[in-house]
Amino acid sequence: MDEAHEVVAAYWAAAEARDWGRFAGLLAEDVVYEGPQTRERVRGREAYVRFNAEGFPGNWHLTVHRIIGQGQHAASWIEMSDVGDHYPGLCFFELDGDGQIARITDFWPEPSELPASREHLVERY
Amino acid sequence: MDEAHEVVAAYWAAAEARDWGRFAGLLAEDVVYEGPQTRERVRGREAYVRFNAEGFPGNWHLTVHRIIGQGQHAASWIEMSDVGDHYPGLCFFELDGDGQIARITDFWPEPSELPASREHLVERY
Repeated sequence: MDEAHEVVAAYWAAAEARDWGRFAGLLAEDVVYEGPQTRERVRGREAYVRFNAEGFPGNWHLTVHRIIGQGQHAASWIEMSDVGDHYPGLCFFELDGDGQIARITDFWPEPSELPASREHLVERY
Repeated sequence: MDEAHEVVAAYWAAAEARDWGRFAGLLAEDVVYEGPQTRERVRGREAYVRFNAEGFPGNWHLTVHRIIGQGQHAASWIEMSDVGDHYPGLCFFELDGDGQIARITDFWPEPSELPASREHLVERY
């Protein structure tokens, strides 16, 4: 098993458990988080733990659908669920030389309309 | 270099080159493509090549930002650009035992509003 894969599996397990101490232990002190859709950024372990612990109220739960690790990089595809709703979350990670998470880029794709240009080329599910 | 990584790099190079013959050669005959946001699905190599060749008119170009491969799985993060616009595309791949792409799941996250619940926890960029 790749190290990056293991670190990301531990990251999501700690998040699901709200075990912010364990979560913090996986992060580099100068970790940088970015969400390109909202253009939000969080810098530093302490701020990033607080962002996770306080920024997402609600009784959410996550299940890991896929983690892929190669060298110091990993990607994950999780399913997030909250009351009556569930949606995918996609995340790219970079580890530093100590195996700690140094960079996180997070995407939350939303349902969208099928363009007419390819309606005849697909089925729907 | 991981095989899945190489196959996905070749996949995107062939797409960018509109080299649909080379593109087809990377796909399993029973490849399944899904776009969860629109709930669209394409089954089979021939239909999937046609979907790519005909479903996306315009003078688009793509650059690969990241590919991560592990075993028979890979993820990619590309940047797609068209006249005056560019946006990320995220893709998860599964290879079959012959190293051909058997399953593709494709996400296109769009810009979104920052929720008020975490405005005080982030910077903007």
